[in-house]
Amino acid sequence: MNDALSIVLFSGTQDKLHAAGTIAAGAAAMGRPVNILLQYWALDAFRADRIDEDHGLSYDAARPRFNEPVGRVGHIPWLETFRQAKELGEVSILACSGSLSVLGLEQTPMDPLVDDSGGIASFLIAAEGSQLIFI
Amino acid sequence: MNDALSIVLFSGTQDKLHAAGTIAAGAAAMGRPVNILLQYWALDAFRADRIDEDHGLSYDAARPRFNEPVGRVGHIPWLETFRQAKELGEVSILACSGSLSVLGLEQTPMDPLVDDSGGIASFLIAAEGSQLIFI
Amino acid sequence: MNDALSIVLFSGTQDKLHAAGTIAAGAAAMGRPVNILLQYWALDAFRADRIDEDHGLSYDAARPRFNEPVGRVGHIPWLETFRQAKELGEVSILACSGSLSVLGLEQTPMDPLVDDSGGIASFLIAAEGSQLIFI
Repeated sequence: MNDALSIVLFSGTQDKLHAAGTIAAGAAAMGRPVNILLQYWALDAFRADRIDEDHGLSYDAARPRFNEPVGRVGHIPWLETFRQAKELGEVSILACSGSLSVLGLEQTPMDPLVDDSGGIASFLIAAEGSQLIFI
Repeated sequence: MNDALSIVLFSGTQDKLHAAGTIAAGAAAMGRPVNILLQYWALDAFRADRIDEDHGLSYDAARPRFNEPVGRVGHIPWLETFRQAKELGEVSILACSGSLSVLGLEQTPMDPLVDDSGGIASFLIAAEGSQLIFI
Repeated sequence: MNDALSIVLFSGTQDKLHAAGTIAAGAAAMGRPVNILLQYWALDAFRADRIDEDHGLSYDAARPRFNEPVGRVGHIPWLETFRQAKELGEVSILACSGSLSVLGLEQTPMDPLVDDSGGIASFLIAAEGSQLIFI
């Protein structure tokens, strides 16, 4: 096993984006290469025209008190964690070309944090031998 | 680390099923063995009597514009990605026996893509030394 | 790759908690060390004053028949799987200090199953070389 960390980032809510960015920043700070593939709603979250909007919260909390503590959380600085990760180390963020097509986003500008687009096959090749997580 | 890829597939919405199937097909095309364990809602999605129905979308998108682009996505050919994965390589799909029991599905026929049922222990043994993701 | 299993546990619904606890117990029964980091809604679920409440279900099922089989599932004994995991082997459960801060839970007592709190960096260091999943 090599020391890289690979993340398939699927979810587009700010809590999960924050979790992903925090893990990426932590790994980058350890000097580990980090490869991130943006799929589906994470890809939508990184659109240049929407990245600063409120990205909501996931439904992974117990529903009987859905707005508490969910409603207390407020804005989560998820984007800063990805910026920090890139400053700290070698972090690649790719837009998944298959997801771009499914969502009709091929011509939509992405935030400059996104380095390039690429397919799942090339991501999996780059991710071989590394820890791989899906968020 | 060996070159197998192991997936605990928990989610039953078509976007996450599509992401899982795409990753499985990509790994199978590389010649990597793929082991998938179906739990909970993924298991429900592979019921023979429901597999062709609409399996909805996850709530992993920002809620303020929930129906856009979510509503634009339409049908996602997730089942085809699993069929393709099986044609491309060595892909095993197991129904988790614990989840079958929790959901009361022990007697419910599964789609022929599902090879067998088995417990988490045997899955973890087969998955040792491989990349392991939870979707 | 060593034989440890590391879990970033983010979700706080009983179905995903159950999946995580089952995987942890299965790995512990194999004699594998298990490291769990509780983030966000999983952290909220392990609050001492709420751990026995109903933690709901995730929205990872197809919506057209949302209450079936979801409504049939009822109570899932997720907490018992974590207790069992700890009895079976070497299982560490950490509260993520960053999530404690985001959720304002620094002074809130956690269930005794939670061993300590710690940051993402120390978790990633402990998790190096192991299988790592995000739930």
